[in-house]
Formats: sequence, C-alpha cells, structure tokens
Amino acid sequence: VPVLRDGSGALNPVRLVEAARDGEPLPEGALEAFLEAYRRGGEGVEDYHVAAFLMAVVFRGLAPGDLSRLVRAMLGSGVRLDLSHLPGPRVDKHSTGGVGDKASLPLAPLVAEGGLFVPMMAGRGLGHTGGTVDKLESIRGYRTDLELDEFVSVVETVGCSIVGQTEEIAALDRRLYALRSVTGTVPSIPLVAASIMSKKLAEDLTGLVLDVKVGRGAFFPEEARALELARTMVGIGGDHGVATSALLTSMERPLGRAVGNALEVAEAVACLRGEGPGDLRDLVLTLAGEMFRIGGIVPDARVGRERAEQLLDGGGPLGRFRRMVDRHGGDPRIVDDPGRLPAAPVVREVRAEAPGRVLAVDPLSLGRGVVELGGGRTRLDQDIDPSVGFVLHVVPGDDVAPGDLLGRVHAASEPDARRGETVLRAAVEVGPSGAEVEPRPLVGRRVAAGEPVDRPASRPGPTGS
Amino acid sequence: VPVLRDGSGALNPVRLVEAARDGEPLPEGALEAFLEAYRRGGEGVEDYHVAAFLMAVVFRGLAPGDLSRLVRAMLGSGVRLDLSHLPGPRVDKHSTGGVGDKASLPLAPLVAEGGLFVPMMAGRGLGHTGGTVDKLESIRGYRTDLELDEFVSVVETVGCSIVGQTEEIAALDRRLYALRSVTGTVPSIPLVAASIMSKKLAEDLTGLVLDVKVGRGAFFPEEARALELARTMVGIGGDHGVATSALLTSMERPLGRAVGNALEVAEAVACLRGEGPGDLRDLVLTLAGEMFRIGGIVPDARVGRERAEQLLDGGGPLGRFRRMVDRHGGDPRIVDDPGRLPAAPVVREVRAEAPGRVLAVDPLSLGRGVVELGGGRTRLDQDIDPSVGFVLHVVPGDDVAPGDLLGRVHAASEPDARRGETVLRAAVEVGPSGAEVEPRPLVGRRVAAGEPVDRPASRPGPTGS
Repeated sequence: VPVLRDGSGALNPVRLVEAARDGEPLPEGALEAFLEAYRRGGEGVEDYHVAAFLMAVVFRGLAPGDLSRLVRAMLGSGVRLDLSHLPGPRVDKHSTGGVGDKASLPLAPLVAEGGLFVPMMAGRGLGHTGGTVDKLESIRGYRTDLELDEFVSVVETVGCSIVGQTEEIAALDRRLYALRSVTGTVPSIPLVAASIMSKKLAEDLTGLVLDVKVGRGAFFPEEARALELARTMVGIGGDHGVATSALLTSMERPLGRAVGNALEVAEAVACLRGEGPGDLRDLVLTLAGEMFRIGGIVPDARVGRERAEQLLDGGGPLGRFRRMVDRHGGDPRIVDDPGRLPAAPVVREVRAEAPGRVLAVDPLSLGRGVVELGGGRTRLDQDIDPSVGFVLHVVPGDDVAPGDLLGRVHAASEPDARRGETVLRAAVEVGPSGAEVEPRPLVGRRVAAGEPVDRPASRPGPTGS
Repeated sequence: VPVLRDGSGALNPVRLVEAARDGEPLPEGALEAFLEAYRRGGEGVEDYHVAAFLMAVVFRGLAPGDLSRLVRAMLGSGVRLDLSHLPGPRVDKHSTGGVGDKASLPLAPLVAEGGLFVPMMAGRGLGHTGGTVDKLESIRGYRTDLELDEFVSVVETVGCSIVGQTEEIAALDRRLYALRSVTGTVPSIPLVAASIMSKKLAEDLTGLVLDVKVGRGAFFPEEARALELARTMVGIGGDHGVATSALLTSMERPLGRAVGNALEVAEAVACLRGEGPGDLRDLVLTLAGEMFRIGGIVPDARVGRERAEQLLDGGGPLGRFRRMVDRHGGDPRIVDDPGRLPAAPVVREVRAEAPGRVLAVDPLSLGRGVVELGGGRTRLDQDIDPSVGFVLHVVPGDDVAPGDLLGRVHAASEPDARRGETVLRAAVEVGPSGAEVEPRPLVGRRVAAGEPVDRPASRPGPTGS
C-alpha cells in the first residue's frame, strides 16, 4: 500500500501525517513532495495538514533520514550564498537563545581579526530571549537588512558582517516557522535543529560553532535535551560537509550584567575594550577559540583561546567592530561614546532590603521583564524600545547588606520602572548570609562530529564579576 | 499568567494548544471558547490551530474535566431530541465499528419487540469497517435521511427507526470529524469517545449499550485500549444521566459469514428468521439482553438474553423489521425474498487448493477488500455499489480438503472478481491439518458504571457455524 500516493499517483498528505504520527519511516520523496507542495500552495497540502504533521513531530521526532530531507527541502527553497572566493575559512557561530547574550557582537570582529570570515545572519528576539538583530538596531542607522551583495562586500572588506535573515534564505523555513509559532510546535528538537541549520548552511560556511544554552533561561532547560539538540545539529552540519561543533553553555542566569538591547550593546563594546563582565569575556574567548579550531588555524581550542585573548587585548577587534557598524550605516561614535546609544528616560535603582547572600538570578523572568518594558515582542510585527532593560549589580554568591544596589531598571516611564523593580526583586533570589551557592560552570560539554563529548578549554567555576 | 486570554481579554488559541501539548489543565471556559469560536468561524480559531490541538490530544489525551467539556460543547452545538413522551425506556446500541457487523439490523426490532424504544442514528462505513446506514440503503427506496419528526414518528409507532446522522445533530462533531479524517487524528480514545457519545446523548436516551470491538479488525485492536475506550464512554454516559454499559466483543474475524452491504442485509434477515450464523445470533441476543437490563425491564442480562431468545424465535421482530423498512420507504418484500436485494453480476467461487485447517480469517483485509470492490469509500463523497462483497464458507477451526468451498466473491466484473479472489485467499489462513486453533470468546468483558468489570451471559468458546 503506498503511503503517500493514492491510486492516481496524487499526493496523499493524510497518509504522510499518519505515518509521522505512528513513527513509520516515510517513503523516499514523500516528505520533500509534501513540503514543496505546501511551500508552493494550492496543491492540496494545507496549513492544517502541516500543523498536524508538526505536532506529531513534536511528540514523535523525525527519523534521521527524514530530518536530513527536511533540512534539504528548507535549504533548497531559498538562495544559498557562494563565498568560495573568500581567501580564508568561513566560520559562524549560532546561539540557541539566551538572556543577556550579546556574545556575537564582540565575537564576530574578534574572529575576523584572527583571519576568519564571519558572514553572520542573526535573528530577532523570540519569547523571553533577546536577538542580535534587535541589539544592533539600537545603534542609530545600523542596517540589518543589507542586500546580499552588500552583505558579501562587508564580509570581504571588514571580515565580518551581521545582518538579519532575508526573505530569500530558506523560504520554506520562514513559512514553517510562522506556522510553528501559532500552533504550539516550536519546542521540537528536530524542528529547531532543521530551522537553525537550514539558515546557517545557506551561508556557505566551512565551519560552524553552536552555542547550545542549557538551564532555566534556555528553550530546552534540561541538559539531556540540550545535548540531543547539539548532537542533532552537529550531525546535520557534518552531513552537509560543514565542520560543526557545539558547546553547551549555562543559561542558569543572564550572561553578563546587562539585559536589554542598547544596554547590551554598551556591554559588548566594553568587552571589546577588555572591560566588562568576566563571564561574557570568558564565553567570547571560548567560542572564538573553538571557531579558530574549527577554522583550522590553530591545533586545538586551548591554543585558539590564547590566540583570541591576545587579539582581543591588542584592540584590533574594537576597530573592526567600529568599521562594521560604519559600513552598515550605523553611528560608529557609539564605540567610543556609549552615551550616544538610546537612553531610557527613567532609571530606577533597586536596593537590597535585608542582608543575605544572592542565591540565584532568574534569566527567564528578567527576559520576560524586558518584553514587558517594551524591549521585546509578543507579536512578530511589533516595534520595540531599544533603551529599556535591566543592569544587574550582583551575581549569585555575592553578599548584600540592606541598601546595597541590586541593579537598575531602565524604563520608558515611572509606572514601567516600578513594575520593572518588582520583576528585578523577584528575579534576584536572596537567601541567608551563610548559604552555599553551588558553582555552575559557564561552559559545559563540547559535541563535535566523530569526537567523544568532552570539555573544552574554559575557566572552571562561576565567573561573571 | 492567563493561559488563554491575552492582556486585552482576547482568546489566545496558541496558548490553549500549548497547554494541551504539555498536558496542563485548561482553565475554566477555555476549551468551550476555543471550540465555539472554531464552530462559528471568523473568530481567530483556524483549522490549523484545531489540527495541532487534535494531534496533541492524540498523544496526550484529555483530562476528564476537559473531555466532559468537549462532549458538552459538541452536544450543545446541535439539536437534541426530546423523546420523554414515549411510554417506555429509550435504549440504543452503538458499535465502534467492525467487519460483517450487521447486528443493529436484527437488534433494533428485537429490542423494540421487548417494549423498548430504539431511536438509532447510525453511521456510514469508515475505513475498512461497514456502516449500518450503507447497509440499509442497499434496500431499494429505504430513506436514511428522514426529517427528525418523521424519525420520531416511526420510533413511536414501530418502536424502532434507523436513520443516518443529520446535520442538525452535534454540528461541532461533524466539523471536527471532517478535520480529524484529513489530519490523521482519528485514533484517539477521548476524541472517539466524545464523537460517539455526543451523537448518542443527543438521542435523549435513558440507556445505552456500547459494543466495543477488540482484535485485529477493530480500530483499537489491543484489549487494554478498547477497555479504556469503553470506560471512557461509560463515564461520559453516566455524567449525562444515561445508564450506559459496554461489552468488549471480538473482531478477530468477521462477524457472521457475509461482508458487503446487501449480502449483510440478507444475513440479518436470516438472523431475524432464526437462521444464519451462530456468532451473529449470539451477539444479537447478548446485546439485546444487556439492553433489556439497561432498560430496567429484566433483573439481569442473563434473564434479558433468555427473553430476547424467546422474542426472536416468536417471529415478532421479523415483522417489526418489515414495518420499519416499509415506513422508511424501502421495499418490504426483501424480507421475504432477499433475492430482491441488489445482486452482483459476477459471483466467483473460491476453493481450497490444498488440505489443511483454517487458522484465521482476517477481517481487516476483507473489509478493505469490500472497499476495493466498490462497496465502501475512500472519500466521503463517493457512491458505493451495495451488491459487492464476500460470503465466507469456513471459519477458524474448519478442516478443508482440496476443492472445498472457502467462500464466494460478489463483484461488478470478472477482473474485480479475480482481485477479490486474491483478497479472500489471503484473508483465509490455512495451516496444517492438525494445527491447534485457540478458541476466542465472541463476547468479552462488560464495563458498567459503578460495577466491577465482569463477564456477561454469553456462550463460551468460538461460535459462528
């Protein structure tokens, strides 16, 4: 009995949905035909067929062969760059989404400084997580919507460029992503992996490093699921001939101190100056070291990290970031004067009311808090306020006395600032003074094709102050 | 955080789908609002939301409270009969669908003969299973689409009437059923239970007996799942004040010898004459006994069965069936002369080629075979040929010698008949002569509200010859 085509040879989308529901292997060509008919429209594959299919995949997963077909279908539905003329390795980084994660901003120019090319197509904020594109757009004039030829030109001359995803890349993914966001079918490892990898593979990379978040602020908080996502994406990269590795990194608390678009750009610039929070610097150096390794310019990630540290402290990446901003039409003076970034009219200090030790800082509630303050979206078509957010002054393990500063709320109005204070107070969990705070390493396991899962070069223990 | 309504109080269907996906309890009123908005249309709940919701329910099930709300929403979406003026218990029977199951045809007049009223709204064939409405329509002139007042009038005067489901009953169920059939979301216990019970509860019954099929020809072949379905439906009936019980009955092989619409009507008439296959008679008497018990006119099912046997052998039910056919516009002469039923032009005998013992007769392939011969549907809008099908001459346990008749194929053409022969040969599994054939009781466990699951009065061991 043919699973997908009826007696007349016509596509039977119901049989495909049933097969996905029952975890049966899909016959050769079936998934491609289903997806292609959906993308084109008017060919008998409707939103409701695909919605049911996606929900079945949420519960059942996809067999490796079908996942590979899904990625190919997405990749084949849009434009793919050809960057083979560039005189060096093309390596990108992708994060699965966190709170306060501005690592891409210092990382791209740092890695370019090391001789790699970084053609980075980034995303906007999603749910409680921020997006690199939104952060960059807080720099007045910065265009994240360069034409593809402009984008390639900036990569050629500056070594790195960060833009948003264009309509031309992975068109099927855009269609599926929109449907997933309204049908409760976002949290699926194969669907997330296919969506990320189809966009990254379109960048014509030679290497890719994935920052897979784990912990309460991540989309997949449990380590086992994050690890499965990492392995799935690394496998897809390998299938397509792109050297891919993944680092599991902690999203138990926000990365760095700043959460909110312009506030994070300022912190990213500080990092490029050799200043700023230690955990951000640690993550940037670790990722850069891994990208240098994947790019083949250092023998291992430890040497890569040392190289990255030398480069960052040499100041070259800061200049390269300034040039990138300039080439994108942004105001390069923000690099030397972060006061030129959009500033919120109300800044409210939040101080400790009782003595104690900071046990945890919840990234999820702070990420949601930024959305509430107007710095993130609940619908795709919303404008955001780049100036709002939080700057933390404590990290887990810090002891506080009454009156000590816990953090600041940057808000558009006094009422917003008061609501922000409530969010910040709830996010900063203060316990008894002598309480033990378990150290959580920022960088966890590394997953790379053909290698045992292992620990990369990273400073041990908690960092961030 | 409200699960279903956003800040503006508008329904958020995505949150409801997510809650169903995660097995979270749905807030009061949420499911009703979602379903009602879907039924009305244009209120932001689209087919794709509901498709994703239904697939989530396939995997996650529904909490008892939500199932109850689903049934109420379905029931509230259509007309409900008021039969309270009838001077006796109103009891119906519903089967979850089998192959060769024509039990409703003798059962309705038999039970009416005992003093119960049977307002039966039946279904059409679905997948490999036959439908009572299709069977009755093989009687020339028989109208299964009576207006509701005509239907009530036949029930009043004859004691029983069998019609199809009208558009007016459980309108939401019709909408959901159509979507389920094209999104692979049919096999879900709560969805099946809600669909069946919403239609049966609209009949204004005092009692309901469910024939829940189990075995390879059933929609839920495994006993554990069939039992869960039975318990779910019995629970819904009890919630709505309708005395409900369920019998698990075997669908390991076709019921009786005939499979195909007109062929089954002839066999049903034979049963009303006290003739025909023993397994059909056994099931009809058992169900009638249970209906008498549920209707409160006998102390227990064993006494009920004895009463049914006396009534059937008295011949009254045959006359009542004739009157029902007549009142529906059908040709009552088929009762005395089944040769007046539509007959297939080609009848092909299929004979054993080697000696052996019949080990099994597969209902699934024979049911699908009838569809292939044109006697069932693959789309809801198809016409069917009432004359085609199979008549078996052997049952499991029979010994056959070369040349012995296994069965006959009734087909529209010689090529169809040859294909039918292939189906029949594959369905009748013949093994070594001395092989053991495990007896499978036709009637298994009984499920009734507030009673332990137990075995009803039924003859033990295999029957059917």
